[in-house]
Amino acid sequence: MMEPEEGAAPAPAPTPAPAAAPVPPREAISLEKAFEGKTLPTWNEQITVRAVVVSAGLGTFLSFIVMKLNITSGIVPSLNVSAGLLAFFMMKTWTSALERCGVFPRPFTRQENTVVQTCVISCSSIAFSGGFGTYILGMSRKIAKGFDEANNTMNVEEPSLWRVMAYLFLVSFVGLFSIVPLRKIMIISYRLTYPSGSATAHLINSFHTPQGAIQAKQQVSILFKSFLGSFLWSMFQWFYTAGDSCGFGSFPTFGMEAYNRRFYFDFSATYVGVGMICPYIINFSLLIGSIISWGIMWPFIESKRGDWYDANLPNSSLHGLNGYQVFISIAMIMGDGLFNFFSILFRTSYDMYLKRTGRAKANAAGVPFAGAGLAGANERQALSFDDRRRTQIFLKDQIPTVVAVGAYVALAGISVLAIPHIFRQLKPKHVVWAYVVAPIFAFCNAYGTGLTDWSLSSSYGKLAIFIFGANIGAKDGGVIAGLAACGLMMGIVSTASDLIQDFKTGYLTLTSPRAMFVSQVIGTGIGCIISPTVFWIFYQAYDIGNDEGYPAPYAKIYRGIALLGTNGWDQLPKYCLRFCAAFFILAIAICALKEVANNKTWWIRDYIPSALGMAVPFFLGSFFTIDMCVGSLILYMWSKSDRLHAQMFAPAVASGLICGDGIWSLPSSLLSLGNVEPPMCLRVFDADTNYEVEQFLSTLPIPAA
Amino acid sequence: MMEPEEGAAPAPAPTPAPAAAPVPPREAISLEKAFEGKTLPTWNEQITVRAVVVSAGLGTFLSFIVMKLNITSGIVPSLNVSAGLLAFFMMKTWTSALERCGVFPRPFTRQENTVVQTCVISCSSIAFSGGFGTYILGMSRKIAKGFDEANNTMNVEEPSLWRVMAYLFLVSFVGLFSIVPLRKIMIISYRLTYPSGSATAHLINSFHTPQGAIQAKQQVSILFKSFLGSFLWSMFQWFYTAGDSCGFGSFPTFGMEAYNRRFYFDFSATYVGVGMICPYIINFSLLIGSIISWGIMWPFIESKRGDWYDANLPNSSLHGLNGYQVFISIAMIMGDGLFNFFSILFRTSYDMYLKRTGRAKANAAGVPFAGAGLAGANERQALSFDDRRRTQIFLKDQIPTVVAVGAYVALAGISVLAIPHIFRQLKPKHVVWAYVVAPIFAFCNAYGTGLTDWSLSSSYGKLAIFIFGANIGAKDGGVIAGLAACGLMMGIVSTASDLIQDFKTGYLTLTSPRAMFVSQVIGTGIGCIISPTVFWIFYQAYDIGNDEGYPAPYAKIYRGIALLGTNGWDQLPKYCLRFCAAFFILAIAICALKEVANNKTWWIRDYIPSALGMAVPFFLGSFFTIDMCVGSLILYMWSKSDRLHAQMFAPAVASGLICGDGIWSLPSSLLSLGNVEPPMCLRVFDADTNYEVEQFLSTLPIPAA
Repeated sequence: MMEPEEGAAPAPAPTPAPAAAPVPPREAISLEKAFEGKTLPTWNEQITVRAVVVSAGLGTFLSFIVMKLNITSGIVPSLNVSAGLLAFFMMKTWTSALERCGVFPRPFTRQENTVVQTCVISCSSIAFSGGFGTYILGMSRKIAKGFDEANNTMNVEEPSLWRVMAYLFLVSFVGLFSIVPLRKIMIISYRLTYPSGSATAHLINSFHTPQGAIQAKQQVSILFKSFLGSFLWSMFQWFYTAGDSCGFGSFPTFGMEAYNRRFYFDFSATYVGVGMICPYIINFSLLIGSIISWGIMWPFIESKRGDWYDANLPNSSLHGLNGYQVFISIAMIMGDGLFNFFSILFRTSYDMYLKRTGRAKANAAGVPFAGAGLAGANERQALSFDDRRRTQIFLKDQIPTVVAVGAYVALAGISVLAIPHIFRQLKPKHVVWAYVVAPIFAFCNAYGTGLTDWSLSSSYGKLAIFIFGANIGAKDGGVIAGLAACGLMMGIVSTASDLIQDFKTGYLTLTSPRAMFVSQVIGTGIGCIISPTVFWIFYQAYDIGNDEGYPAPYAKIYRGIALLGTNGWDQLPKYCLRFCAAFFILAIAICALKEVANNKTWWIRDYIPSALGMAVPFFLGSFFTIDMCVGSLILYMWSKSDRLHAQMFAPAVASGLICGDGIWSLPSSLLSLGNVEPPMCLRVFDADTNYEVEQFLSTLPIPAA
Repeated sequence: MMEPEEGAAPAPAPTPAPAAAPVPPREAISLEKAFEGKTLPTWNEQITVRAVVVSAGLGTFLSFIVMKLNITSGIVPSLNVSAGLLAFFMMKTWTSALERCGVFPRPFTRQENTVVQTCVISCSSIAFSGGFGTYILGMSRKIAKGFDEANNTMNVEEPSLWRVMAYLFLVSFVGLFSIVPLRKIMIISYRLTYPSGSATAHLINSFHTPQGAIQAKQQVSILFKSFLGSFLWSMFQWFYTAGDSCGFGSFPTFGMEAYNRRFYFDFSATYVGVGMICPYIINFSLLIGSIISWGIMWPFIESKRGDWYDANLPNSSLHGLNGYQVFISIAMIMGDGLFNFFSILFRTSYDMYLKRTGRAKANAAGVPFAGAGLAGANERQALSFDDRRRTQIFLKDQIPTVVAVGAYVALAGISVLAIPHIFRQLKPKHVVWAYVVAPIFAFCNAYGTGLTDWSLSSSYGKLAIFIFGANIGAKDGGVIAGLAACGLMMGIVSTASDLIQDFKTGYLTLTSPRAMFVSQVIGTGIGCIISPTVFWIFYQAYDIGNDEGYPAPYAKIYRGIALLGTNGWDQLPKYCLRFCAAFFILAIAICALKEVANNKTWWIRDYIPSALGMAVPFFLGSFFTIDMCVGSLILYMWSKSDRLHAQMFAPAVASGLICGDGIWSLPSSLLSLGNVEPPMCLRVFDADTNYEVEQFLSTLPIPAA
């Protein structure tokens, strides 16, 4: 899973059947048959003491790395795969060492591996979603002194250790309970792909594949080859990224004009892999969205610069072009998300009504209803052995909905009482409102991540800053209220999508959902203690906010958004809300069309793009769209030349691509922390600029190259 | 075949068995079996009127392109593959058009295709080897006025149409006769690979593969895929070459330090393909040579700058570092070449002696003797069906040695009388000397091209300039004498290697060597008329030598070398001749060791590097070495994973790579002639330079990217 700008968020599981794709790569061979000889541990056997110890250790290590990156460049790569790999090697070393000493502990299973992975990620992701580089720091005096506006006691709050810790405990667990009742819908009915989670599961399965399973071994061998290739490629790329917009990541593949509109192939192995896992229709939707937004709409809106919005604003200002981008994109995602949310609500109620009246139909997979959208196409396929086995395990250990809802309400109640004491700028009514809408956002984000692999939690956070800031106003501490609300929203929304992503990993590794959930809770608890502590150490030790050393750029940006928010809604650029309304309605219309087409089994039903998919590049640009379409293209051509081969090995290749690129994040983070700069910079100039640069180079004392 | 700097030279034939490779990719399937149903035309049926007409037309077209490039950038890419492709389509269109009109001409065979290809190349290559961008122009007043020295009547000769045409007729045919008796040794005994020629033959065979030959069809399909990929890649690269040292061709793959010593992978599909065709040992020799020269020797010599040679000289001066490079490299090549030349002489004499005394052994392939060096390893393999068939055809139509030697002597005699009338600065004794040593150089170059695909005719030309210039001196017109001798030497040397390369194409397409030879003679004759005419038109029309429009850079360089030469031998940098002697002896020692190892069947015999291979990168740098080693690596890994598959398809892939890149030369030349500049420039800076460039870019009015 990727975060658009601030970076990492926890994630981890290979997809057996990307649904609704024109050529869905269903598994030609069964992985679970290879594992059949292995006994499946019960859910409480999956959570071991050694797992928790290793998780806490790894979580602390990764929290340090994330925190340091938070306050320096602000760019935090996803360390999930690294966490998985480190977890595997630490656990393996642990058990092997014991065995050599003559002690034979319980064998290290893939389920335990998944549990450790989940726990580490929940722990270290708090270092990111806790907002230490963004909203928490944005409240602080160190950052506030960089702004002239709202630099008063009402709008500055120091991030003391206990306050931050208490706040994190209040907001981090709610996310888990908000979404857990929907796990079956996401994983089994919708069969969402969660590419990063699927890839991690594939990696874990590969580590634990039993000897002798020849076809599975072949898959493992291909996965590791692709893994190695992807890792080496990322490493190679690193050497050419000495400066801003250096390297293959800023390569104008389709020319300068297209590059300036963010249409380029950025040579990212991750997204190519993600593209191979995501269904064709999603990648196609992303492409359409890219063309509509960056190809047509933004250039049009930019042509109104000075008319619709202040011409002096940079493109990154929410009051300028970026405002349109963020708000229109959220409106469209909300449209799709709300439609699906209410569709589920309606269907569940109807299903329960049928059950009560004894008219429920039998369902092979034990799924209570067929599900909307993507599921439609999928239901038409028979389930493979692996799918049946995984579904069976996934449905075995239940987490009762009553418990989940009860816990959510209880936690929300405590928060309503406690949060206004932590941040006096937030009143109980604000907190109530936040807790009412948060599950909807959480659903939208978890659903979107499942479809496109992009977690847009920071967008929801920014929306919260803006809404709360605007409603409360600077006088009443709107800046702090906005930032605190952002924390609340990001906490819930990002934890929710991580949870379902982890459930996908669990589904694919036959890990009990209950074990996963408990592991998440433990990890989150550890993270809520470790991250604030690590942050507090850094905050005391370093002059954060100083451009020379620890600029913490995103803290400034977030405070900037909050300041803009307090100026009110009418500060939004012209027609922005009208656009939002139009795209919100468009999204609902597309979903409705898809629903009708599915029910009437029209042929176009597989060719209707996803509104959510279209909305994602509105804000992010098209580079990853191109990568993902390249992934689709590779899969398509591979399927054309050897369909069975592609079905067997494409998920392995894709997972290898994602994981190899992902693991490089760790060494590259360490290099960055050690102030090791890449030695070279790859740049592309247009011919005119190149002429100027050549002239300039000839004036340098030592001629370059 | 590649020329190191001034560009193209004629060439064209897929290799069945790169000899002496650790894993020689012998053909697993027989191509000739697929062609067995087709009747083989006799040699005179292979040369048709339509072939000559098409050749003359195409030759003229290509001559125009080459000539224009000669006088502008001076960089002429190899247009051989383009010639082959255009020839095929024109002939095909011709016969199809006639068929549609109800006339059924003789079918268009691959032999006729090869003949046209050869004829076109011999014709258009005169535009390059005729030296219109180098030595002929270097004599002219237009170029001479750019120099202060030797700007007198003795050292300036205007390139009048008749004089140039007469000179070309005298020097261009001699090359053909000088080498033709050695064709059997090169092609059949030594089994030299001639990668470009082999690739062209593969392409021609692919065009004419009969329907229904499934395996052959598979090869054809793979060839065209690799062809298309290579073509698109070259096209893509073009877009990023807006300025000097822009683009993937100057990409510091192994870092800046290595790049500055010319160690980098330049992403050239051609050389990767050539590397796949050349035996492992050759690529390995090239790599060793690169490391010895650019890694160790040149840095050492550069450290003596100011001591061994004038510190103010640029690295490109023959009196400085470049002097060591050119002369040492030629000394080593001459050492290897002379050893093999005399080895052949000795063996042939011995063989004839045995035959006369009735003690000759039977030889399956009809080859008079086993051959030295490379052939040793090869002889240990049984010949495949294809090899036997090709050898049989190749040996059918003889060109009597008596005719060849007689023609050479006759032409030399005419030249000795005529050349001093054309360039009074050359005395008959000089011409005699030139004609005595030229066949040795011709052999060395043809042999080297067969091994490494590099024709170093311009190096031999430079050597001739230097030797003749130094011996005659500026007072007696040494500049003109040197340049004229260069023309003579280049004419003979480059024609000779082209001829054997074409014989390789002929061998692989079952074209009669006699038809090939006649075709070469016809093509050369046409070229000797067309090229001077085209040049004369340009010379009259444009202000050549003017840096703004038609700088003809190599004409200036050649005149510069001649001027240096007239200053005498003692102008060479310190110890240069000693180095030359050492490397000359080293080359002979290596060859002798190889010979002994082969005879005694020592295990090291396959691991002794080729002295000639080592010498090639001395002068050229290591970039193509890396490419070729990448080719070897691909072949090696492919063979490891699927030996039979690699044997079947590697030559097709390699030929596709070479031909696809080659065909792009035509559109790129046309773009260059049309003054269409690439739109972008890809550059890599080291981190410090990048910092400076970033500062500079921020000062530009419109920020780039």
